[in-house]
Amino acid sequence: MTERMIVVGADAAGMATAAQARRRRDRNDLEIVAFERGHFTSYSACGIPYWISGLVPEREQLVARDPETHRKQYDIDVRLRHEVTAIDLDRREVVARDLDGGGEVRERFDTLMYAAGAVPIKPDWARTDAAGVFGVQTLDDGSALRRWLEAEPRPRRAVVVGGGYIGVEMAEALVLRGLSVTLLERGEQPVSTVDPDMAVLVTEAMRGLGVDIRTGVEVTGLAVRDGRVYGVQTDAGHLPTDLVVLGLGVRPNTALAEAAGLPLGPTGGIRVDRRMRVTGTPGVWAAGDCVETLHRVSGLPVHIPLGTHANKQGRVAGINIGGGYATFAGVIGTAVTKVCDLEVGRTGLRERDATAAGFEFVSVIAESTNRAGYYPGSRPMTVKLIAERPSGRLLGAQIVGWSEAAKRIDTLAVALWNRMTVDDMTALDLGYAPPYAPVWDPVLVAARKATDALAR
Amino acid sequence: MTERMIVVGADAAGMATAAQARRRRDRNDLEIVAFERGHFTSYSACGIPYWISGLVPEREQLVARDPETHRKQYDIDVRLRHEVTAIDLDRREVVARDLDGGGEVRERFDTLMYAAGAVPIKPDWARTDAAGVFGVQTLDDGSALRRWLEAEPRPRRAVVVGGGYIGVEMAEALVLRGLSVTLLERGEQPVSTVDPDMAVLVTEAMRGLGVDIRTGVEVTGLAVRDGRVYGVQTDAGHLPTDLVVLGLGVRPNTALAEAAGLPLGPTGGIRVDRRMRVTGTPGVWAAGDCVETLHRVSGLPVHIPLGTHANKQGRVAGINIGGGYATFAGVIGTAVTKVCDLEVGRTGLRERDATAAGFEFVSVIAESTNRAGYYPGSRPMTVKLIAERPSGRLLGAQIVGWSEAAKRIDTLAVALWNRMTVDDMTALDLGYAPPYAPVWDPVLVAARKATDALAR
Repeated sequence: MTERMIVVGADAAGMATAAQARRRRDRNDLEIVAFERGHFTSYSACGIPYWISGLVPEREQLVARDPETHRKQYDIDVRLRHEVTAIDLDRREVVARDLDGGGEVRERFDTLMYAAGAVPIKPDWARTDAAGVFGVQTLDDGSALRRWLEAEPRPRRAVVVGGGYIGVEMAEALVLRGLSVTLLERGEQPVSTVDPDMAVLVTEAMRGLGVDIRTGVEVTGLAVRDGRVYGVQTDAGHLPTDLVVLGLGVRPNTALAEAAGLPLGPTGGIRVDRRMRVTGTPGVWAAGDCVETLHRVSGLPVHIPLGTHANKQGRVAGINIGGGYATFAGVIGTAVTKVCDLEVGRTGLRERDATAAGFEFVSVIAESTNRAGYYPGSRPMTVKLIAERPSGRLLGAQIVGWSEAAKRIDTLAVALWNRMTVDDMTALDLGYAPPYAPVWDPVLVAARKATDALAR
Repeated sequence: MTERMIVVGADAAGMATAAQARRRRDRNDLEIVAFERGHFTSYSACGIPYWISGLVPEREQLVARDPETHRKQYDIDVRLRHEVTAIDLDRREVVARDLDGGGEVRERFDTLMYAAGAVPIKPDWARTDAAGVFGVQTLDDGSALRRWLEAEPRPRRAVVVGGGYIGVEMAEALVLRGLSVTLLERGEQPVSTVDPDMAVLVTEAMRGLGVDIRTGVEVTGLAVRDGRVYGVQTDAGHLPTDLVVLGLGVRPNTALAEAAGLPLGPTGGIRVDRRMRVTGTPGVWAAGDCVETLHRVSGLPVHIPLGTHANKQGRVAGINIGGGYATFAGVIGTAVTKVCDLEVGRTGLRERDATAAGFEFVSVIAESTNRAGYYPGSRPMTVKLIAERPSGRLLGAQIVGWSEAAKRIDTLAVALWNRMTVDDMTALDLGYAPPYAPVWDPVLVAARKATDALAR
């Protein structure tokens, strides 16, 4: 008898699952129905800031695979604008509302993939339907913001609330569109995904671009007139603005899952096992921004919403649902971002994470260059390493530089993944040629410095 | 009593040794004398092509540390233009000839560091003192070539013999200077450090730049008139030219070492142990382009002359001579090069090496892009992986691409260094953001493809 899989959420995790399952089982063996409340499938949310800035001209460029491709090429019954409103585990049914046509459908499943993603974190003041307040999580969010930016009279001032990756990328995007931009960050520095001594480099670069960065500022409310925002109220005074972008991060979208009784972990994400099965819930799987996962260094569960994890997890789930065997190995917190011309990379634990996890460690910051010093385009690169004391095991790394910096974090990520010590790392055979590295690559310079620090 | 170290060759390996030893032992404890037959210390031979092209304007930019710095900062008695002509292990003496002043000096040593580097491979036809024939191994070679290029009448045509890295880089440099360049390669493709199916991409790029590449061509002689070269004779006919660059590779410079009775290995390089001590020869050390080293994948000795190894080996030797403990862990054959705008990286074994070492393997070539497909500047990237069958262990990797390609080899090099399987590699947490990678990094795309190939 044909088995039936329902996918809740037709973005990265859900559709990677569906595609992998389909590779292994044809439609006579496995029917796949995917519900998506939005207008799009499989798109790059990470690309939204570049579409807003105009660097990527067309919204459709961000769509990796449209519904027709999923339907025709993978034989997946994709139903856009259908919001799943309930999951009944006993009856093995989901209920979905047709957001455009109206009405409700009930669909039976044997296998359920819960891939509902994440929802923006909204403090009370942000729960508004005032015009001019935007999230940037979905393509629909992005479309609304683009319309606002192109409407007359053109907005001139923007306030971005939150200095995480998306906030910083949006601040830059809006500057590139010619707006005067203020970035509000509650903490000490924006880009708190790196330690403050590295984040300060990013803050300087953003100020150099003209972004008005205000740190240690708490938003208390929005000023709204005639249903339209005109200012942001903070504990440091009022800021007039023509639009507000919310970049306060996201949390796992688990409302439906909780209602159905799926287990959540301490991070608020759905608990899954290594094969992406929801813990203790036969036939139910979850993947992507709605689940929590293991951090391989701290050993703790973490919630790191990122397309690359969603895709990997979906692939793992799909292989398993398809009858194969695969496990998700966990994450180490690798991330890269571009801020103005500055490149930022990180992997593993920050100092605060290492302390929280109970590690003793040394940390070093090494200055070097991306290329041989005499080669044109040579620019400074700063590498920070955090290593366990006394073992020397690499716990975390951060890089800030002007070019060829961000992806050098991968070299450190693979070293960290393999539990290398900084001393062992000094021996690594990395590529050397004047256009690409000094004779001691910045990664090796930092490993040497950390080794020296451990010996003291 | 003060111990005395003599260093033969004051370039990367020798001076890294001296500097590390000095860090741990002051001059009352260890006297250091370094003999160098050339005019320079510690320079980047790898940078010569970029100085020839004009990309690096001044010769002095290639000198990382001049003799004065070594003397003043490290208290090393550097003697330029002194060629060591004999080593007497029984009497613990070296004999050196003063190339400028004339005469000979004899100097006693307790410790000897042999770091005489490599010498160009010269077939009979290349053993000439005809004007217009150039090596590019030393700064003195480079100076001679620069003078030739700037003399009137300006040379218009050049023939580069040999399609290794240096040959290819020199061909590009001469094209950039406006010369009409022919590259002669005896084998099937230039850049034979990657497999032919990858090298073909490089050949195409060079032809696009206007280099006349002729493969399968053997040079038989030079045409010389009035002591000046005017053509190259080959088994495919005569090629008129105004200058000839020899890029036929190098071999360990061991004449002195052999005469002194130091042991050579099967590659022709000096045999050393893990601490860089010359095997069976107390008090004598060697490092850099004159030694052979262990290839960690094949388990065989190899001779890979490269500044990054020379520096690491010198550091290891210097730590040991200084009274510390360090070992050189071997190499995996990582190398990167820039050919026109094309970037080339490699690590581990090529197919022919894997076969020679007795491995069974699969190899895959995966096409991807350096950035998210929609991000401006996204360019194709080709990744080749060679994985042991059935274990899946990565044995080698090659990358060719147009930007952000070469140094991605480091990610693969660290994976290979840690004996990862391609299946494990599909789980790696690598940096993802649209300006830097597609959601599946090219490295991961290739690892998935290799995993699939192994399953078949």
